[in-house]
Amino acid sequence: MTLHAPYDTENIFAKILRGEMPCVKVYEDSHILSIMDAFPQSEGHVLVIPKAPSRNLLEVSSKDIGRLFGAVQRITVAVQAALKPDGLVVTQFNGAPAGQTVFHTHVHIIPRYEGKAMASHELGKGGGMADVAALEVIAEKIREKLG
Amino acid sequence: MTLHAPYDTENIFAKILRGEMPCVKVYEDSHILSIMDAFPQSEGHVLVIPKAPSRNLLEVSSKDIGRLFGAVQRITVAVQAALKPDGLVVTQFNGAPAGQTVFHTHVHIIPRYEGKAMASHELGKGGGMADVAALEVIAEKIREKLG
Repeated sequence: MTLHAPYDTENIFAKILRGEMPCVKVYEDSHILSIMDAFPQSEGHVLVIPKAPSRNLLEVSSKDIGRLFGAVQRITVAVQAALKPDGLVVTQFNGAPAGQTVFHTHVHIIPRYEGKAMASHELGKGGGMADVAALEVIAEKIREKLG
Repeated sequence: MTLHAPYDTENIFAKILRGEMPCVKVYEDSHILSIMDAFPQSEGHVLVIPKAPSRNLLEVSSKDIGRLFGAVQRITVAVQAALKPDGLVVTQFNGAPAGQTVFHTHVHIIPRYEGKAMASHELGKGGGMADVAALEVIAEKIREKLG
């Protein structure tokens, strides 16, 4: 059962949280890090990550739940204001059979644009890795709206 | 822009919340109602609905965000304990282009089972309307774990 397993401190978000891997930052406070998804499923695909180690939503402390989804809401509002998508998917995968690929809890905010399909998140099947400079431009628009 | 529009008090969840339409209840308190999805994408597909009127996540009060996702987490844990799926998708659609079909905020908890695809949620494309007695059996298993 993949849902219950030890936390792997070498997962990519753990490395990003420790500053060992780069990221394009959208927001940070003492409990939350929000970054641009490096393999975006649409323009403006953002991740919101609680800093405390947990593999999935089942393991997040009840205190962190409010902080995490409070941040998710504020960032969703900012993405909407910055990019004016026609819709927004907020989604969170628990376990590989549910589509989870990095085993540190994270919430996806995925803008949807009328007539544009979402790219697959799977390596080799989607839009691929985004250009960091292009992500930085989008992140700056979102950060401005977060004020 | 579908994201900002007046709240329609005749949407199906408003009717369920007023007791004008039936539902198979999983959990209820003064702020939250959780029910079985009548058109499940997999066995154990549950909805969590904040009672206060809002069209989507952008409009939920910051107080209700913590309550809503606190309930989502507790119910996700109960679904996991009751049905032992291999994974769980927690997802929330804002605006028709993002897949929203009922314009009262709601969060989907969708169990995933190894080797079983998710049914489409669209009418006529998915598994169709579930049998109420079968949903009641599943709901009872989840309610037992919610204790």
